[in-house]
Amino acid sequence: MEDKTVKSVLLVFAMEAEAQPLIQALGLKEDAPPKILGPAPCLTFSGSHEGLNVHVVWNGKDRETGVDNVGTVPASLSTYLAVMAFKPDIVISAGTSGGFKAQGAAIGDVFLGTAVINHDRRIPLPNFDKYGIGYSLCLATPGLQSSLGLKQGVVSSGNSLDYTDKCMSIMEQHGVAVKEMEAAAIAWACNLFHVPLMCVKAVTDIVDGDRATAEEFLENLHSAAAALQSTLPRVLGQLAGRKLGEL
Amino acid sequence: MEDKTVKSVLLVFAMEAEAQPLIQALGLKEDAPPKILGPAPCLTFSGSHEGLNVHVVWNGKDRETGVDNVGTVPASLSTYLAVMAFKPDIVISAGTSGGFKAQGAAIGDVFLGTAVINHDRRIPLPNFDKYGIGYSLCLATPGLQSSLGLKQGVVSSGNSLDYTDKCMSIMEQHGVAVKEMEAAAIAWACNLFHVPLMCVKAVTDIVDGDRATAEEFLENLHSAAAALQSTLPRVLGQLAGRKLGEL
Repeated sequence: MEDKTVKSVLLVFAMEAEAQPLIQALGLKEDAPPKILGPAPCLTFSGSHEGLNVHVVWNGKDRETGVDNVGTVPASLSTYLAVMAFKPDIVISAGTSGGFKAQGAAIGDVFLGTAVINHDRRIPLPNFDKYGIGYSLCLATPGLQSSLGLKQGVVSSGNSLDYTDKCMSIMEQHGVAVKEMEAAAIAWACNLFHVPLMCVKAVTDIVDGDRATAEEFLENLHSAAAALQSTLPRVLGQLAGRKLGEL
Repeated sequence: MEDKTVKSVLLVFAMEAEAQPLIQALGLKEDAPPKILGPAPCLTFSGSHEGLNVHVVWNGKDRETGVDNVGTVPASLSTYLAVMAFKPDIVISAGTSGGFKAQGAAIGDVFLGTAVINHDRRIPLPNFDKYGIGYSLCLATPGLQSSLGLKQGVVSSGNSLDYTDKCMSIMEQHGVAVKEMEAAAIAWACNLFHVPLMCVKAVTDIVDGDRATAEEFLENLHSAAAALQSTLPRVLGQLAGRKLGEL
Protein backbone atom coordinates (compact mmCIF):
# COMPACT_ATOMS: atom_id res chain seq x y z
CA MET A 1 0.00 0.00 0.00
CA GLU A 2 1.29 3.41 -0.99
CA ASP A 3 2.39 5.43 2.06
CA LYS A 4 0.38 8.49 1.19
CA THR A 5 -0.58 11.44 3.33
CA VAL A 6 -4.09 11.27 4.75
CA LYS A 7 -6.14 14.10 3.30
CA SER A 8 -9.64 12.64 3.24
CA VAL A 9 -11.58 10.15 5.32
CA LEU A 10 -14.93 8.44 4.77
CA LEU A 11 -16.86 7.33 7.86
CA VAL A 12 -19.51 4.65 7.31
CA PHE A 13 -22.40 4.41 9.79
CA ALA A 14 -25.37 2.05 9.77
CA MET A 15 -27.69 3.98 12.07
CA GLU A 16 -28.79 7.59 12.15
CA ALA A 17 -28.36 7.65 15.95
CA GLU A 18 -24.72 6.69 15.45
CA ALA A 19 -24.02 9.19 12.66
CA GLN A 20 -25.90 12.31 13.79
CA PRO A 21 -23.71 13.30 16.78
CA LEU A 22 -20.59 13.46 14.61
CA ILE A 23 -22.39 15.21 11.75
CA GLN A 24 -23.58 17.86 14.20
CA ALA A 25 -20.33 18.20 16.14
CA LEU A 26 -18.30 18.70 12.96
CA GLY A 27 -20.99 20.78 11.22
CA LEU A 28 -21.01 18.47 8.20
CA LYS A 29 -23.54 19.31 5.49
CA GLU A 30 -25.59 16.89 3.44
CA ASP A 31 -24.12 16.77 -0.06
CA ALA A 32 -26.39 18.64 -2.48
CA PRO A 33 -26.73 17.76 -5.26
CA PRO A 34 -26.26 14.16 -4.04
CA LYS A 35 -22.84 12.63 -4.69
CA ILE A 36 -24.35 9.18 -5.10
CA LEU A 37 -26.68 8.72 -8.04
CA GLY A 38 -29.44 6.19 -8.27
CA PRO A 39 -31.90 4.82 -5.79
CA ALA A 40 -29.39 3.67 -3.13
CA PRO A 41 -30.91 4.70 0.22
CA CYS A 42 -27.68 6.01 1.71
CA LEU A 43 -27.11 9.67 2.51
CA THR A 44 -23.78 11.49 2.49
CA PHE A 45 -22.48 14.49 4.42
CA SER A 46 -19.23 16.38 3.96
CA GLY A 47 -17.10 19.01 5.63
CA SER A 48 -13.67 19.34 7.19
CA HIS A 49 -11.98 18.91 10.55
CA GLU A 50 -8.43 20.00 11.37
CA GLY A 51 -7.61 20.30 7.68
CA LEU A 52 -8.95 16.84 6.85
CA ASN A 53 -11.75 16.37 4.32
CA VAL A 54 -14.39 14.41 6.19
CA HIS A 55 -17.20 12.51 4.48
CA VAL A 56 -19.91 10.53 6.22
CA VAL A 57 -22.21 7.98 4.63
CA TRP A 58 -25.02 6.34 6.52
CA ASN A 59 -27.20 3.62 5.12
CA GLY A 60 -30.49 5.49 5.26
CA LYS A 61 -33.87 4.06 6.16
CA ASP A 62 -35.75 1.04 4.84
CA ARG A 63 -38.76 2.24 2.83
CA GLU A 64 -40.97 -0.64 3.99
CA THR A 65 -40.32 -0.63 7.75
CA GLY A 66 -38.80 2.81 8.39
CA VAL A 67 -35.83 1.38 10.31
CA ASP A 68 -32.16 2.01 9.62
CA ASN A 69 -30.70 -0.22 6.90
CA VAL A 70 -28.45 -2.23 9.22
CA GLY A 71 -26.48 -5.32 8.25
CA THR A 72 -23.97 -6.29 5.62
CA VAL A 73 -25.91 -5.77 2.38
CA PRO A 74 -26.67 -2.03 2.70
CA ALA A 75 -23.25 -1.42 4.31
CA SER A 76 -21.33 -2.86 1.38
CA LEU A 77 -23.42 -0.94 -1.15
CA SER A 78 -23.04 2.37 0.73
CA THR A 79 -19.31 1.84 1.08
CA TYR A 80 -18.84 0.88 -2.57
CA LEU A 81 -20.76 3.87 -3.87
CA ALA A 82 -19.25 6.35 -1.39
CA VAL A 83 -15.65 5.23 -1.99
CA MET A 84 -16.33 5.57 -5.72
CA ALA A 85 -17.71 9.09 -5.14
CA PHE A 86 -15.23 10.47 -2.60
CA LYS A 87 -12.00 8.47 -3.21
CA PRO A 88 -11.01 8.68 0.49
CA ASP A 89 -7.54 7.80 1.75
CA ILE A 90 -9.02 5.88 4.70
CA VAL A 91 -12.45 4.42 5.43
CA ILE A 92 -13.62 4.20 9.05
CA SER A 93 -16.40 1.79 10.00
CA ALA A 94 -17.83 3.53 13.05
CA GLY A 95 -20.68 2.57 15.31
CA THR A 96 -21.95 0.67 18.28
CA SER A 97 -21.28 -2.98 18.97
CA GLY A 98 -21.30 -5.83 21.43
CA GLY A 99 -18.10 -6.40 23.40
CA PHE A 100 -16.56 -9.56 24.85
CA LYS A 101 -15.62 -9.24 28.51
CA ALA A 102 -13.25 -12.18 27.87
CA GLN A 103 -11.29 -9.72 25.71
CA GLY A 104 -11.51 -6.92 28.28
CA ALA A 105 -14.56 -5.07 26.97
CA ALA A 106 -16.86 -3.03 29.21
CA ILE A 107 -19.94 -0.98 28.28
CA GLY A 108 -18.93 2.45 26.96
CA ASP A 109 -15.46 1.32 25.82
CA VAL A 110 -14.32 2.38 22.37
CA PHE A 111 -12.32 -0.22 20.45
CA LEU A 112 -10.08 0.01 17.43
CA GLY A 113 -10.34 -3.02 15.14
CA THR A 114 -7.20 -4.99 14.35
CA ALA A 115 -8.96 -7.19 11.79
CA VAL A 116 -12.47 -8.13 10.71
CA ILE A 117 -14.17 -11.47 10.13
CA ASN A 118 -17.68 -12.75 9.40
CA HIS A 119 -19.16 -15.12 12.00
CA ASP A 120 -22.30 -16.15 10.09
CA ARG A 121 -20.93 -17.31 6.74
CA ARG A 122 -20.22 -21.03 7.17
CA ILE A 123 -19.37 -22.59 3.80
CA PRO A 124 -17.58 -25.91 4.42
CA LEU A 125 -16.20 -26.36 0.90
CA PRO A 126 -12.52 -25.98 -0.07
CA ASN A 127 -11.48 -22.28 -0.13
CA PHE A 128 -15.12 -21.20 0.24
CA ASP A 129 -14.61 -21.75 4.00
CA LYS A 130 -11.87 -19.10 4.01
CA TYR A 131 -13.92 -16.79 1.76
CA GLY A 132 -16.85 -17.13 4.16
CA ILE A 133 -14.82 -16.03 7.16
CA GLY A 134 -13.37 -13.20 5.07
CA TYR A 135 -10.54 -12.36 7.49
CA SER A 136 -9.16 -8.95 6.58
CA LEU A 137 -6.60 -6.84 8.44
CA CYS A 138 -7.44 -3.30 9.43
CA LEU A 139 -4.95 -0.47 8.96
CA ALA A 140 -2.33 -0.66 11.72
CA THR A 141 -2.49 2.49 13.87
CA PRO A 142 -0.31 1.77 16.93
CA GLY A 143 0.60 5.41 17.57
CA LEU A 144 -2.99 6.57 17.36
CA GLN A 145 -4.13 3.74 19.61
CA SER A 146 -1.63 4.46 22.35
CA SER A 147 -1.99 8.23 22.24
CA LEU A 148 -5.79 7.97 22.54
CA GLY A 149 -5.63 5.06 25.01
CA LEU A 150 -8.13 2.94 23.09
CA LYS A 151 -8.59 -0.80 23.47
CA GLN A 152 -8.15 -2.95 20.38
CA GLY A 153 -9.26 -6.30 19.05
CA VAL A 154 -10.81 -8.33 16.25
CA VAL A 155 -14.22 -7.14 15.00
CA SER A 156 -16.72 -9.74 13.84
CA SER A 157 -19.79 -9.09 11.69
CA GLY A 158 -23.05 -10.95 11.27
CA ASN A 159 -26.58 -10.08 10.21
CA SER A 160 -28.26 -10.95 13.52
CA LEU A 161 -28.31 -8.98 16.75
CA ASP A 162 -28.06 -12.27 18.63
CA TYR A 163 -25.80 -15.23 17.82
CA THR A 164 -25.93 -19.00 17.61
CA ASP A 165 -23.55 -21.56 19.08
CA LYS A 166 -21.94 -21.79 15.63
CA CYS A 167 -21.39 -18.01 15.54
CA MET A 168 -19.89 -18.09 19.02
CA SER A 169 -17.56 -20.93 18.10
CA ILE A 170 -16.21 -18.94 15.14
CA MET A 171 -15.86 -15.79 17.25
CA GLU A 172 -13.98 -17.71 19.96
CA GLN A 173 -11.64 -19.29 17.42
CA HIS A 174 -10.67 -15.82 16.22
CA GLY A 175 -10.44 -14.20 19.66
CA VAL A 176 -13.11 -11.67 18.73
CA ALA A 177 -13.43 -8.62 21.02
CA VAL A 178 -16.21 -6.76 19.24
CA LYS A 179 -19.38 -8.09 17.55
CA GLU A 180 -21.42 -5.95 15.19
CA MET A 181 -23.29 -6.14 11.88
CA GLU A 182 -21.38 -4.34 9.12
CA ALA A 183 -17.57 -4.07 9.33
CA ALA A 184 -16.67 -7.19 7.34
CA ALA A 185 -18.90 -6.11 4.45
CA ILE A 186 -17.39 -2.63 4.55
CA ALA A 187 -13.94 -4.28 4.45
CA TRP A 188 -14.99 -6.32 1.42
CA ALA A 189 -15.92 -3.16 -0.48
CA CYS A 190 -12.77 -1.33 0.68
CA ASN A 191 -10.57 -4.19 -0.48
CA LEU A 192 -12.01 -3.92 -3.99
CA PHE A 193 -10.65 -0.35 -4.09
CA HIS A 194 -7.45 -1.12 -2.09
CA VAL A 195 -8.50 1.51 0.45
CA PRO A 196 -7.41 0.85 4.05
CA LEU A 197 -10.06 0.36 6.72
CA MET A 198 -10.16 1.37 10.37
CA CYS A 199 -12.92 0.27 12.75
CA VAL A 200 -13.94 2.46 15.70
CA LYS A 201 -16.61 0.69 17.75
CA ALA A 202 -18.30 1.71 21.01
CA VAL A 203 -19.62 -1.07 23.24
CA THR A 204 -23.38 -1.06 24.01
CA ASP A 205 -23.70 -4.57 25.44
CA ILE A 206 -21.63 -7.50 26.66
CA VAL A 207 -21.89 -10.50 24.33
CA ASP A 208 -20.55 -13.04 26.83
CA GLY A 209 -22.52 -11.56 29.74
CA ASP A 210 -25.79 -12.44 31.42
CA ARG A 211 -28.20 -9.93 29.89
CA ALA A 212 -30.19 -10.11 26.67
CA THR A 213 -28.52 -8.17 23.85
CA ALA A 214 -31.64 -6.34 22.65
CA GLU A 215 -32.41 -4.99 26.14
CA GLU A 216 -28.84 -3.89 26.82
CA PHE A 217 -28.45 -2.47 23.32
CA LEU A 218 -31.49 -0.20 23.59
CA GLU A 219 -30.51 0.90 27.10
CA ASN A 220 -26.97 1.88 26.13
CA LEU A 221 -27.30 2.95 22.49
CA HIS A 222 -27.28 6.67 23.21
CA SER A 223 -24.53 6.60 25.85
CA ALA A 224 -22.32 4.48 23.59
CA ALA A 225 -23.05 6.84 20.71
CA ALA A 226 -21.88 9.66 22.98
CA ALA A 227 -18.65 7.77 23.79
CA LEU A 228 -18.17 7.24 20.08
CA GLN A 229 -18.76 10.92 19.41
CA SER A 230 -16.21 12.02 22.01
CA THR A 231 -13.62 9.71 20.41
CA LEU A 232 -14.15 10.16 16.67
CA PRO A 233 -12.99 13.80 16.40
CA ARG A 234 -9.84 12.84 18.32
CA VAL A 235 -9.25 9.95 15.89
CA LEU A 236 -9.69 12.31 12.94
CA GLY A 237 -7.29 14.78 14.56
CA GLN A 238 -4.64 12.03 14.72
CA LEU A 239 -5.07 11.22 11.03
CA ALA A 240 -4.93 14.72 9.55
CA GLY A 241 -1.81 15.24 7.45
CA ARG A 242 -0.07 12.08 8.68
CA LYS A 243 1.23 9.36 6.40
CA LEU A 244 -0.54 5.98 6.49
CA GLY A 245 2.65 4.30 7.65
CA GLU A 246 3.17 6.58 10.64
CA LEU A 247 -0.22 6.16 12.30
CA MET B 1 -46.30 -1.60 -11.07
CA GLU B 2 -46.67 -0.47 -14.66
CA ASP B 3 -47.92 -3.29 -16.91
CA LYS B 4 -45.21 -2.90 -19.49
CA THR B 5 -44.12 -5.27 -22.23
CA VAL B 6 -41.07 -7.35 -21.38
CA LYS B 7 -38.25 -6.43 -23.71
CA SER B 8 -35.18 -7.04 -21.57
CA VAL B 9 -34.24 -9.40 -18.77
CA LEU B 10 -31.25 -9.49 -16.40
CA LEU B 11 -30.25 -12.87 -14.97
CA VAL B 12 -28.14 -12.78 -11.79
CA PHE B 13 -25.91 -15.79 -11.01
CA ALA B 14 -23.54 -16.31 -8.10
CA MET B 15 -21.38 -19.07 -9.57
CA GLU B 16 -19.62 -19.45 -12.89
CA ALA B 17 -20.78 -23.10 -13.08
CA GLU B 18 -24.36 -21.85 -12.87
CA ALA B 19 -23.98 -19.04 -15.43
CA GLN B 20 -21.79 -20.61 -18.12
CA PRO B 21 -24.28 -23.14 -19.58
CA LEU B 22 -26.81 -20.37 -20.31
CA ILE B 23 -24.15 -17.99 -21.65
CA GLN B 24 -22.98 -20.69 -24.05
CA ALA B 25 -26.42 -21.94 -25.05
CA LEU B 26 -27.62 -18.44 -25.92
CA GLY B 27 -24.28 -17.32 -27.38
CA LEU B 28 -24.11 -14.31 -25.06
CA LYS B 29 -20.96 -12.19 -25.34
CA GLU B 30 -19.06 -10.53 -22.51
CA ASP B 31 -19.80 -6.82 -22.63
CA ALA B 32 -16.76 -4.95 -23.98
CA PRO B 33 -16.05 -2.27 -22.99
CA PRO B 34 -17.46 -3.26 -19.60
CA LYS B 35 -20.92 -1.92 -18.79
CA ILE B 36 -20.06 -1.72 -15.09
CA LEU B 37 -17.32 0.69 -14.13
CA GLY B 38 -15.15 0.43 -11.08
CA PRO B 39 -13.58 -2.46 -9.25
CA ALA B 40 -16.74 -4.52 -8.70
CA PRO B 41 -15.75 -8.12 -9.43
CA CYS B 42 -18.90 -8.98 -11.39
CA LEU B 43 -18.88 -9.73 -15.11
CA THR B 44 -21.69 -9.10 -17.57
CA PHE B 45 -22.73 -10.81 -20.80
CA SER B 46 -25.38 -9.75 -23.29
CA GLY B 47 -27.24 -11.04 -26.35
CA SER B 48 -30.76 -11.88 -27.39
CA HIS B 49 -33.16 -14.81 -27.35
CA GLU B 50 -36.49 -14.94 -29.17
CA GLY B 51 -36.48 -11.17 -29.55
CA LEU B 52 -35.73 -10.54 -25.89
CA ASN B 53 -32.63 -8.60 -24.81
CA VAL B 54 -30.86 -10.92 -22.39
CA HIS B 55 -28.20 -9.75 -19.93
CA VAL B 56 -26.35 -11.94 -17.47
CA VAL B 57 -24.35 -10.79 -14.47
CA TRP B 58 -22.35 -13.16 -12.33
CA ASN B 59 -20.54 -12.16 -9.20
CA GLY B 60 -17.04 -13.01 -10.37
CA LYS B 61 -14.24 -14.53 -8.29
CA ASP B 62 -12.80 -13.54 -4.95
CA ARG B 63 -9.25 -12.21 -5.49
CA GLU B 64 -7.95 -13.71 -2.25
CA THR B 65 -9.33 -17.27 -2.43
CA GLY B 66 -10.22 -17.67 -6.11
CA VAL B 67 -13.74 -18.92 -5.35
CA ASP B 68 -17.00 -17.51 -6.71
CA ASN B 69 -18.30 -14.50 -4.77
CA VAL B 70 -21.32 -16.27 -3.28
CA GLY B 71 -23.64 -14.84 -0.64
CA THR B 72 -25.71 -11.74 -0.15
CA VAL B 73 -23.09 -8.97 -0.23
CA PRO B 74 -21.67 -9.52 -3.73
CA ALA B 75 -25.15 -10.44 -5.05
CA SER B 76 -26.70 -7.16 -3.99
CA LEU B 77 -23.81 -5.14 -5.41
CA SER B 78 -23.87 -6.99 -8.76
CA THR B 79 -27.63 -6.56 -9.00
CA TYR B 80 -27.54 -2.88 -8.10
CA LEU B 81 -24.84 -2.07 -10.63
CA ALA B 82 -26.28 -4.26 -13.39
CA VAL B 83 -29.84 -2.92 -13.00
CA MET B 84 -28.38 0.59 -13.15
CA ALA B 85 -26.45 -0.35 -16.33
CA PHE B 86 -29.06 -2.38 -18.21
CA LYS B 87 -32.43 -1.10 -16.89
CA PRO B 88 -34.09 -4.50 -17.35
CA ASP B 89 -37.86 -5.02 -17.23
CA ILE B 90 -37.42 -8.15 -15.08
CA VAL B 91 -34.56 -9.52 -12.97
CA ILE B 92 -34.21 -13.30 -12.58
CA SER B 93 -32.23 -14.71 -9.67
CA ALA B 94 -31.12 -18.04 -11.13
CA GLY B 95 -29.03 -20.78 -9.63
CA THR B 96 -28.80 -23.91 -7.57
CA SER B 97 -30.31 -24.37 -4.14
CA GLY B 98 -31.35 -26.70 -1.39
CA GLY B 99 -34.94 -27.96 -1.51
CA PHE B 100 -37.35 -29.00 1.26
CA LYS B 101 -38.92 -32.41 0.69
CA ALA B 102 -41.66 -31.23 3.11
CA GLN B 103 -42.60 -28.78 0.32
CA GLY B 104 -42.36 -31.40 -2.39
CA ALA B 105 -38.78 -30.79 -3.57
CA ALA B 106 -36.62 -33.49 -5.16
CA ILE B 107 -33.08 -33.26 -6.52
CA GLY B 108 -33.09 -31.85 -10.07
CA ASP B 109 -36.42 -30.01 -9.65
CA VAL B 110 -36.60 -26.44 -10.85
CA PHE B 111 -38.66 -24.08 -8.67
CA LEU B 112 -40.16 -20.68 -9.32
CA GLY B 113 -40.05 -18.42 -6.26
CA THR B 114 -43.29 -16.96 -4.95
CA ALA B 115 -41.53 -14.74 -2.39
CA VAL B 116 -38.13 -14.37 -0.75
CA ILE B 117 -37.05 -14.05 2.88
CA ASN B 118 -33.80 -14.01 4.86
CA HIS B 119 -33.37 -16.79 7.43
CA ASP B 120 -30.19 -15.53 9.11
CA ARG B 121 -31.05 -11.93 10.01
CA ARG B 122 -32.57 -12.11 13.50
CA ILE B 123 -33.02 -8.59 14.91
CA PRO B 124 -35.52 -8.76 17.80
CA LEU B 125 -36.22 -5.02 18.01
CA PRO B 126 -39.48 -3.36 16.90
CA ASN B 127 -39.72 -3.17 13.08
CA PHE B 128 -36.10 -4.31 12.75
CA ASP B 129 -37.45 -7.87 13.12
CA LYS B 130 -39.55 -7.41 9.97
CA TYR B 131 -36.67 -5.66 8.17
CA GLY B 132 -34.41 -8.60 9.04
CA ILE B 133 -36.75 -11.17 7.50
CA GLY B 134 -37.15 -8.90 4.47
CA TYR B 135 -40.18 -10.72 3.06
CA SER B 136 -40.62 -9.64 -0.56
CA LEU B 137 -43.03 -11.00 -3.16
CA CYS B 138 -41.73 -12.24 -6.48
CA LEU B 139 -43.45 -11.34 -9.74
CA ALA B 140 -46.55 -13.51 -10.14
CA THR B 141 -46.20 -15.73 -13.23
CA PRO B 142 -49.05 -18.28 -13.00
CA GLY B 143 -49.33 -18.81 -16.75
CA LEU B 144 -45.61 -19.37 -17.16
CA GLN B 145 -45.54 -21.71 -14.20
CA SER B 146 -48.37 -23.93 -15.45
CA SER B 147 -47.22 -23.97 -19.06
CA LEU B 148 -43.69 -25.03 -18.04
CA GLY B 149 -44.93 -27.35 -15.27
CA LEU B 150 -42.58 -25.92 -12.66
CA LYS B 151 -42.96 -26.27 -8.91
CA GLN B 152 -43.19 -23.10 -6.86
CA GLY B 153 -42.52 -21.94 -3.32
CA VAL B 154 -40.89 -19.46 -0.98
CA VAL B 155 -37.13 -18.94 -1.44
CA SER B 156 -35.01 -18.24 1.65
CA SER B 157 -31.51 -16.78 1.66
CA GLY B 158 -28.66 -16.98 4.14
CA ASN B 159 -24.90 -16.65 4.03
CA SER B 160 -24.12 -20.20 5.16
CA LEU B 161 -24.32 -23.43 3.19
CA ASP B 162 -25.61 -25.13 6.32
CA TYR B 163 -28.21 -23.83 8.77
CA THR B 164 -28.80 -23.54 12.51
CA ASP B 165 -31.90 -24.43 14.52
CA LYS B 166 -32.79 -20.72 14.47
CA CYS B 167 -32.53 -20.62 10.66
CA MET B 168 -34.69 -23.73 10.38
CA SER B 169 -37.31 -22.29 12.70
CA ILE B 170 -37.61 -19.18 10.52
CA MET B 171 -37.72 -21.26 7.33
CA GLU B 172 -40.46 -23.48 8.79
CA GLN B 173 -42.52 -20.49 9.91
CA HIS B 174 -42.51 -19.21 6.34
CA GLY B 175 -43.10 -22.57 4.65
CA VAL B 176 -39.83 -22.26 2.73
CA ALA B 177 -39.40 -24.63 -0.24
CA VAL B 178 -35.98 -23.49 -1.48
CA LYS B 179 -32.87 -22.45 0.50
CA GLU B 180 -30.02 -20.61 -1.16
CA MET B 181 -27.60 -17.73 -0.53
CA GLU B 182 -28.50 -14.69 -2.64
CA ALA B 183 -32.15 -14.15 -3.68
CA ALA B 184 -33.24 -11.93 -0.76
CA ALA B 185 -30.30 -9.59 -1.33
CA ILE B 186 -31.07 -9.46 -5.06
CA ALA B 187 -34.69 -8.64 -4.14
CA TRP B 188 -33.48 -5.82 -1.88
CA ALA B 189 -31.57 -4.23 -4.76
CA CYS B 190 -34.46 -4.79 -7.22
CA ASN B 191 -36.91 -3.13 -4.83
CA LEU B 192 -34.77 0.00 -4.76
CA PHE B 193 -35.33 0.27 -8.53
CA HIS B 194 -38.95 -1.02 -8.43
CA VAL B 195 -37.94 -3.77 -10.86
CA PRO B 196 -39.83 -7.07 -10.48
CA LEU B 197 -37.92 -10.20 -9.51
CA MET B 198 -38.36 -13.82 -10.52
CA CYS B 199 -36.43 -16.68 -8.91
CA VAL B 200 -35.60 -19.82 -10.91
CA LYS B 201 -33.82 -22.32 -8.66
CA ALA B 202 -32.64 -25.88 -9.37
CA VAL B 203 -32.37 -28.26 -6.42
CA THR B 204 -28.93 -29.77 -5.68
CA ASP B 205 -29.62 -31.14 -2.20
CA ILE B 206 -32.43 -31.85 0.24
CA VAL B 207 -32.31 -29.54 3.27
CA ASP B 208 -34.62 -31.66 5.44
CA GLY B 209 -33.02 -34.94 4.34
CA ASP B 210 -30.39 -37.23 5.81
CA ARG B 211 -27.27 -36.27 3.88
CA ALA B 212 -24.75 -33.50 4.50
CA THR B 213 -25.40 -30.46 2.30
CA ALA B 214 -21.80 -29.97 1.17
CA GLU B 215 -21.49 -33.57 -0.05
CA GLU B 216 -24.84 -33.57 -1.86
CA PHE B 217 -24.23 -30.08 -3.27
CA LEU B 218 -20.91 -31.01 -4.90
CA GLU B 219 -22.33 -34.29 -6.23
CA ASN B 220 -25.34 -32.65 -7.88
CA LEU B 221 -24.07 -29.18 -8.81
CA HIS B 222 -23.50 -29.97 -12.47
CA SER B 223 -26.68 -31.99 -13.00
CA ALA B 224 -28.75 -29.28 -11.31
CA ALA B 225 -27.00 -26.66 -13.44
CA ALA B 226 -28.03 -28.73 -16.48
CA ALA B 227 -31.66 -28.81 -15.29
CA LEU B 228 -31.49 -25.07 -14.80
CA GLN B 229 -30.03 -24.64 -18.27
CA SER B 230 -32.79 -26.70 -19.91
CA THR B 231 -35.41 -24.56 -18.14
CA LEU B 232 -34.06 -21.01 -18.42
CA PRO B 233 -34.38 -20.60 -22.23
CA ARG B 234 -38.00 -21.83 -21.96
CA VAL B 235 -38.64 -19.26 -19.20
CA LEU B 236 -37.15 -16.51 -21.37
CA GLY B 237 -39.30 -17.69 -24.31
CA GLN B 238 -42.41 -17.24 -22.17
CA LEU B 239 -41.41 -13.69 -21.22
CA ALA B 240 -40.55 -12.31 -24.64
CA GLY B 241 -43.01 -9.65 -25.76
CA ARG B 242 -45.57 -10.42 -23.03
CA LYS B 243 -46.91 -7.87 -20.60
CA LEU B 244 -45.89 -8.22 -16.93
CA GLY B 245 -49.54 -8.66 -15.93
CA GLU B 246 -50.17 -11.56 -18.32
CA LEU B 247 -47.34 -13.85 -17.23
